[in-house]
Amino acid sequence: MPLSRRIESDIKNASKIRKLFEEGMELKKAHGEMNVADLSIGNPVVEPPEEFVDAVSGLIQQRAGMHRYMPNLGFPWVREAVARSLKEEGYFNEIGAEHIMMCVGAAAGLNVVLKTILNAGESVIAVAPYFVEYRSYVENHGGELKVVRASDDFTLDVKRIEEAIEPNTRAVVINSPNNPTGVVYSRENLVELANVLIRKKRSSGQTIYVVSDEPYREIIYDGKPFTSITTLYPESFMVYSFSKSLSIPGERIGYVAINPEMDDSRTMMNGMAICNRILGFVNAPALMQRAIAGIGIRVAVDYYKSRRDKIRKVLEDSGYEFANPQGTFYLFVKCLDEEEAFIEEAKKRLLLLVPGSTFGYDGWFRIAYCVDDNTIELACRKLRELAEVYRN
Amino acid sequence: MPLSRRIESDIKNASKIRKLFEEGMELKKAHGEMNVADLSIGNPVVEPPEEFVDAVSGLIQQRAGMHRYMPNLGFPWVREAVARSLKEEGYFNEIGAEHIMMCVGAAAGLNVVLKTILNAGESVIAVAPYFVEYRSYVENHGGELKVVRASDDFTLDVKRIEEAIEPNTRAVVINSPNNPTGVVYSRENLVELANVLIRKKRSSGQTIYVVSDEPYREIIYDGKPFTSITTLYPESFMVYSFSKSLSIPGERIGYVAINPEMDDSRTMMNGMAICNRILGFVNAPALMQRAIAGIGIRVAVDYYKSRRDKIRKVLEDSGYEFANPQGTFYLFVKCLDEEEAFIEEAKKRLLLLVPGSTFGYDGWFRIAYCVDDNTIELACRKLRELAEVYRN
Repeated sequence: MPLSRRIESDIKNASKIRKLFEEGMELKKAHGEMNVADLSIGNPVVEPPEEFVDAVSGLIQQRAGMHRYMPNLGFPWVREAVARSLKEEGYFNEIGAEHIMMCVGAAAGLNVVLKTILNAGESVIAVAPYFVEYRSYVENHGGELKVVRASDDFTLDVKRIEEAIEPNTRAVVINSPNNPTGVVYSRENLVELANVLIRKKRSSGQTIYVVSDEPYREIIYDGKPFTSITTLYPESFMVYSFSKSLSIPGERIGYVAINPEMDDSRTMMNGMAICNRILGFVNAPALMQRAIAGIGIRVAVDYYKSRRDKIRKVLEDSGYEFANPQGTFYLFVKCLDEEEAFIEEAKKRLLLLVPGSTFGYDGWFRIAYCVDDNTIELACRKLRELAEVYRN
Repeated sequence: MPLSRRIESDIKNASKIRKLFEEGMELKKAHGEMNVADLSIGNPVVEPPEEFVDAVSGLIQQRAGMHRYMPNLGFPWVREAVARSLKEEGYFNEIGAEHIMMCVGAAAGLNVVLKTILNAGESVIAVAPYFVEYRSYVENHGGELKVVRASDDFTLDVKRIEEAIEPNTRAVVINSPNNPTGVVYSRENLVELANVLIRKKRSSGQTIYVVSDEPYREIIYDGKPFTSITTLYPESFMVYSFSKSLSIPGERIGYVAINPEMDDSRTMMNGMAICNRILGFVNAPALMQRAIAGIGIRVAVDYYKSRRDKIRKVLEDSGYEFANPQGTFYLFVKCLDEEEAFIEEAKKRLLLLVPGSTFGYDGWFRIAYCVDDNTIELACRKLRELAEVYRN
């Protein structure tokens, strides 16, 4: 066999989503792209802000040594700028370049962190529904993903998390605003989890790291406040990406910030530098590091909100049950039938949805509403039609 | 401990080089940067060609969807352009986009390939002296590096490689032009290896992949012809980076091409797409993919050659023994004393060299001559002085 046994099995597991993709492409070919409502992919149609384009245009003209290797953690002045922005936004008071690693997007940041801390056989807790690739990221580095179900309202069920902790538990992955549910965890909910981990450390000496995946933290609606758990618990990593906030997911730029009060933080940063290098990232793309350092975050929140409002209204009017969509550009909705049959029925009507089982949460589906106006209109109509079918 | 045990030990192993780095920085601070000849880092001082800057300037103004996610293997039209260039340069006749994966530099490409093919406990053969990070790349994915010594002239000792093959051998990594020796493997030498692997497959059915790391293939002197072993053996991966050929190592852009005759090549490409995604690369930076697709390779060969010639003359005149520097911007030289003492003596004279033991080849040192004029002059003087010391 050409592939390793693990990748062989990954291909089989991934085949559900790929099948959906491929069928989607065929449907678009057969029926015309305009007639298929593809809500399956979280790839924003929004363009990056003018400021980003101007920044890159200016920077590319400066040339003295600007495309060379730099330290694996990134340009020191870029890391300084990121630390300054985290201070200004009120996340940390005492943070500096020495707590920041620039990385090739959040997926890279998560892999670097996990590689740095995981020993073979140690486990990492994630909360279902969860971003499907967390399992691969953990297994890449010899760890094991342990899945804990969220509360019925899709907030953290801290009691369940506490019960899932074992002597070999090394980390908990937190994703707020959450993909796929759109739920933003409240400060109280996060404090509760932080306290469990602090107590655990005190009682047994076991350090459990929190890895907080926050690419959607600026996409929040209706004044719902955002809290990063990294500000509540010292042993934590903030993993951030500019993919969503600047609409540049193809460019692969983000950072990891550690809580400045983390134990032995210098050793941790040295470990992360090595892992960034040996995993083959080496450093975050130089031009993109320089670009994000000079500009502010400009998120197309209004754009996403108008889309959320439209679809939410249709879901409400049609009697769908769904998670409270406080942020991100996803809606997580209960199927009106057994999952596979429902997704299939939607597909027949040229409406493409991601099944909840993909996120470890059977019987629901995810809508990505970061799509164009035509797709939104089409989707609203088809969601209504679908509800009619099951009502009769 | 904050770090995984493996990274803990990696930090200890890496400490030799880091110590050299840190001492180098201290020496520069204490004695002035102008007075330290730092030949330790392979970070070219050459700037990217005008054409690259123009390409990026133009591309950043085109915006419709240009910074979004694309398939994990890269933009199809970029992969098509790379395939075309490989045809034009005479590497493969029947190659297409379906054989190309764009990646975040060669380090990323190597990791993706190894992740795709390695099962836990399988071994990968490398030839010493070898690029120090091959060991980490292999171990990242549960493999084991098996090191075979090169011939005395630093070409491949194919007999030794053949003897090192075991039932669990999964791949051989080849690096020509070679870092650290600068040697370019001849076609005959590579054919010999390819034949061993073809015979192995025929006799025992064992497929041993060749992973060919070729970032220096355009930096070759004196008309020495370059052969890629990937053109001689179907089960092979060509891993290429634009870091050296366009002087943009900080931007992280390269590709992996598979030999179009590889068995089950479609499955292999599917596996690589998944590994590119789950390792956290996701895709090669979008803007850089587009930039390299439109421009030709412009290598500063003359710049490097004039530096090689200067240093080589000094080495010859002073009686140093060194590998035949046919390519790259490295020279690999025999120490005039026991390695550690010699490197230390050089450092006392503000000449910074990388010890051969770092490359699994004790008693030699590496010179990186991709440096500015002042450093070259300084280095020549200091290398002469050093020879004087040991002659007396």
